[in-house]
Amino acid sequence: MNRDELQQVLEYAREHHESFLPGYLELLRFPSISTDPAHQADLAACGDWILAEMARIGLQNVRKIETEGHPVLYADWLAAGPEAPTAIIYAHYDVQPIDPLELWDSPPFEPTIRDGRLVARGVMDNKCGIWGNLKVLESFLQTLGRLPLNIKICFEGEEECGSPNMAPFVAAHKGLLQADVLVNSDGEIDFEQPIQSYAMRGIVSAEITVRCAQEDLHSGLYGGVVQNPNHVIGAIIASFHDADGHIQIEGFYDNVLAIDAEERQRLREAYRLQGAAFEAASGTENFWAESLAPRQERATVWPTLDVNGVKGGYLGQGVKTVIPAEASCKVTMRLVPDQDPEQIAQLLEKHVQQFASDTADVQVRIAAKAWPFTIDPANAAMAAVQQALHTTIGKSAIFTRSGGSIPILGMFQRELGIPMTGLPYGAGGKIHAPNEYLILADFSTTIQLAIRFYCELAKLRPTDF
Amino acid sequence: MNRDELQQVLEYAREHHESFLPGYLELLRFPSISTDPAHQADLAACGDWILAEMARIGLQNVRKIETEGHPVLYADWLAAGPEAPTAIIYAHYDVQPIDPLELWDSPPFEPTIRDGRLVARGVMDNKCGIWGNLKVLESFLQTLGRLPLNIKICFEGEEECGSPNMAPFVAAHKGLLQADVLVNSDGEIDFEQPIQSYAMRGIVSAEITVRCAQEDLHSGLYGGVVQNPNHVIGAIIASFHDADGHIQIEGFYDNVLAIDAEERQRLREAYRLQGAAFEAASGTENFWAESLAPRQERATVWPTLDVNGVKGGYLGQGVKTVIPAEASCKVTMRLVPDQDPEQIAQLLEKHVQQFASDTADVQVRIAAKAWPFTIDPANAAMAAVQQALHTTIGKSAIFTRSGGSIPILGMFQRELGIPMTGLPYGAGGKIHAPNEYLILADFSTTIQLAIRFYCELAKLRPTDF
Repeated sequence: MNRDELQQVLEYAREHHESFLPGYLELLRFPSISTDPAHQADLAACGDWILAEMARIGLQNVRKIETEGHPVLYADWLAAGPEAPTAIIYAHYDVQPIDPLELWDSPPFEPTIRDGRLVARGVMDNKCGIWGNLKVLESFLQTLGRLPLNIKICFEGEEECGSPNMAPFVAAHKGLLQADVLVNSDGEIDFEQPIQSYAMRGIVSAEITVRCAQEDLHSGLYGGVVQNPNHVIGAIIASFHDADGHIQIEGFYDNVLAIDAEERQRLREAYRLQGAAFEAASGTENFWAESLAPRQERATVWPTLDVNGVKGGYLGQGVKTVIPAEASCKVTMRLVPDQDPEQIAQLLEKHVQQFASDTADVQVRIAAKAWPFTIDPANAAMAAVQQALHTTIGKSAIFTRSGGSIPILGMFQRELGIPMTGLPYGAGGKIHAPNEYLILADFSTTIQLAIRFYCELAKLRPTDF
Repeated sequence: MNRDELQQVLEYAREHHESFLPGYLELLRFPSISTDPAHQADLAACGDWILAEMARIGLQNVRKIETEGHPVLYADWLAAGPEAPTAIIYAHYDVQPIDPLELWDSPPFEPTIRDGRLVARGVMDNKCGIWGNLKVLESFLQTLGRLPLNIKICFEGEEECGSPNMAPFVAAHKGLLQADVLVNSDGEIDFEQPIQSYAMRGIVSAEITVRCAQEDLHSGLYGGVVQNPNHVIGAIIASFHDADGHIQIEGFYDNVLAIDAEERQRLREAYRLQGAAFEAASGTENFWAESLAPRQERATVWPTLDVNGVKGGYLGQGVKTVIPAEASCKVTMRLVPDQDPEQIAQLLEKHVQQFASDTADVQVRIAAKAWPFTIDPANAAMAAVQQALHTTIGKSAIFTRSGGSIPILGMFQRELGIPMTGLPYGAGGKIHAPNEYLILADFSTTIQLAIRFYCELAKLRPTDF
C-alpha cells in the first residue's frame, strides 16, 4: 500500500468521526453484562448486532461460534494472500456490572456526551475495541476495497466473568484461530505517556459461602448460642492478609519468580513516567502495604488477593436483629509467573476450609482460573505499534507490566504459541466503575493510530514474526 | 364482675373468633416497616387505621401522639373508678423488614392461611398484641358495656428500630402514662410450656462504615496498592470474638453482675422444660461458644454481640473485579445487668476505631441504646397471669429470663417505677424471619386467657401492686 492510499484511509476515518458515532451509541445501549444470567438475551442481541455490522462493512465468513457460555463472534478477510501476514484481533463485547448504580451521573446504558466525553458502561472496557477495529477495517474497505493484510476477528462475550468457556473454545478451533500475530484491543491508552504492556497477571476467582443455621434466626434469642455466619466470613476475610499486606495462604508465594535488577529498573522507570497519573486516578493519597515492595511492583509483579464483595444478613436501612443463615464473599487473586492457577485455587480452598467446623459449613466455589503470561517486548508487532505511535503522536511507548488479566491471551499463548501485541482504543477512564468514559477526540486519534499500525504490520512477512 | 358476666365475655370472644379475622388481615396488610424510611406513609396509615378501630370499639381519649419518629397511639377507658386498678397496655404496630424475600412462601404483606396457620410479617411480632388486646376489650365492651378495670393503651411505632424516640416521649408524658401496672403484650407464648419472663436484655445497635478510596477501583490495577475496605470490615468483625466466643472489646464484661446459685438453678430448671423447643426452633444441632456457659445462660444472662448485616463491593451474580470505596456492617449488642448502654456504646466505638488508619476511614454510628431490666417475679400482676393460665389451660408458667430486648419497658421501669407483667398473644413462630406465623386456634386461646387475666387484675386494689 502506498503513501497516498494510506492518506486516503486516514482521511476517510477523520471525515467520518462524527458519522461513526450513532452506530457506537447503538452498540453501547446493549446491557451486555456477562456475569449476570438475567442479561443472557442482551448478550445475544449485542452479538447479533455486531455480526450484522461485520457483514455490512465487508468482512467474510462472519459467524457466531457457540460455546457453553456466550458465543464468540468470528469474521475474517484473507484476500491479502499468503505473502501478507495474518493478524487475529481480540476484543470483548461483554461489560462489567453497573452497580453502584446510584453513583452514575447518567444511566449506564444510555450513552451521554458531556464535555467531549462519552459516558457509558463498556465505552472503554471494551466496546471501543470492537467499534474501533470495525471502523478501521471499514475505512480500508470503503476507501480501497481491500485490507493491507489478512485479518481474523475473535470477539469474546465472557471476558468480564473470567472466560470460563474459552479454554475449550481455543483448543477446539486451533486451525481457525491460527495467525502470525495476535492483536489485543482490550486495554487503555494514555496519550500523555503511552505504555506497551509485556505481561499480564493470571487470575483465580472464587465465591466463599458460610452457612450455620438453616434459616435466619432472631439474634436476641439465639445470639451467643448459634454461630453467626457473618462472624465466620469476617474471620475468613481477616485471615487473608497480615498487617503488612502479606497474603497468609500457606504456599501462596512458593512459585513466584523473583524479578531481576533489569526488570526492577524497567518498572521503576515506567512508574516514574506513569505513576503520577496512576496515583491521581486512585482517588486516594494513602497507599497500602507499602512495606512489601514499591508500588509499581505491587501493582504488576506481585500477586494479590482482593475481596471484591461481601454480604450477609440485613443490608437495608436501619436495624434488623437477625442471625442470617448464610454469608458469602467473592475473592479474586491476581497471579504472577510462575503461579499455577489450579494449584493456587487448591491452596485457597484448603486455607478457607480451616474455618469450617461443626457450627459452620464452608463452601468454596472456584469461578475462573487463568494463567499469567509475558511476551517478548522486542517482537515485530510491538515494534509496529511503536512506529505507528511515533508517526501519529510523535511519542514512543514505555514498556511495563500490566496488573490486569485477560484470560484468553494466556490461552492463546499456551495453545497457539503466537506472538502478540496490544492495540488499545481505550483513551478515557473509570473502567469497572461508575461514569466510565471515553474521550471522543482521543478515540479519533486511536483510529488513526490503528490504521497506521495495520499498515506497519502489512510491511512484514509471515516469517518476520 | 361476676362469674356469669365473665362467661358472657369469654363466649362472645369464642363466637366471634372467625369474624375477628377479616379485621386482622386488614391490619397485617400495612407494610409498617419502621426501620425503612420508604415506609413512613405505611406506618402513618397503619396508625390511623388502629386509632379508628380503637374509637369504633368504644375506647376513649383516642389520640395520636407525635414524636420525632413514628407516632404513639394512645387511648384509655377510665370509668372503672379509683377503687379499680389501672393497667397500661403496651404493644407495637411496626414490624421487621421482610428480606430475604425469596424465602417467603407467600408475600409477607398478603396474609395467607395454611394448615391453620396465619402467615404474614408482623402476625406474631407484634400485631397480634395490638389486635388481641383490642378484641379482648371489644368483647368486654360489647357484652357488658364496660371494662372491669381502668385501661390505658400505648402502642408504639418504632420498637423494631430500637425505640430511638421513646425516652423523650416517656419523660414528657409521665402523667398520662402513670398506671398501677404495665401489661406488655410484645412476646411469644408456648402453650406446651408457658413461660413468664422476669428480665430482658438491653441493646446497643450500631453501624460501622469503612471508606478507603473515594470511589470504586479496578482490583486488577489497584489491588495490593490501595486498601480494600472489605478487608478492614473483615478484620473488625473478626476482632469482636475470640475462638471461644468471648467478646474482645476491652471492658465489655466489667459491669456484668454474676448470677447466684438460685438463679442459675432457676434458669437450668426452665431450660429443662423449654430447651428442647428452643433448640428445635434453631434449625441446627450444633451450638456455638459452648465453653463459655450453659446455653440457657448464654441466651439470657450473658451479653452478646452479633453482626446482623455486612456488605461491601459487588453483591450480584458472578464476578466484578472491584475494590469498593466503602464497606459496612450492622452490629447489635445485648446487655445484661449492670451494663450501661452509653458506656458500652463508647467501648464499641473505641474498639472499632483501632482499625482506623491513614488508608482507612472508620465511622461508628450508634443507632439505638436501651437498658437491661429485671422485674420481681412475685409481683401481683405476674400472679394474675399464673391464675389465668391455670384456669384457661390448666398449666402454670415457669419463670425465666428473656434474651430479647424491648427498650421501652426499661424506660417505663426507670421513669415511671411501676411493676409489669407479660401478656403475650404470640402463639406461633419464625419471628424476624421469613414465613412468620400465628397458630389461629392458639390465638383464640390467648384471647380467652387475656379476658381471664384482666378479670384477675380487676380483683386487685391499686394498693396491691
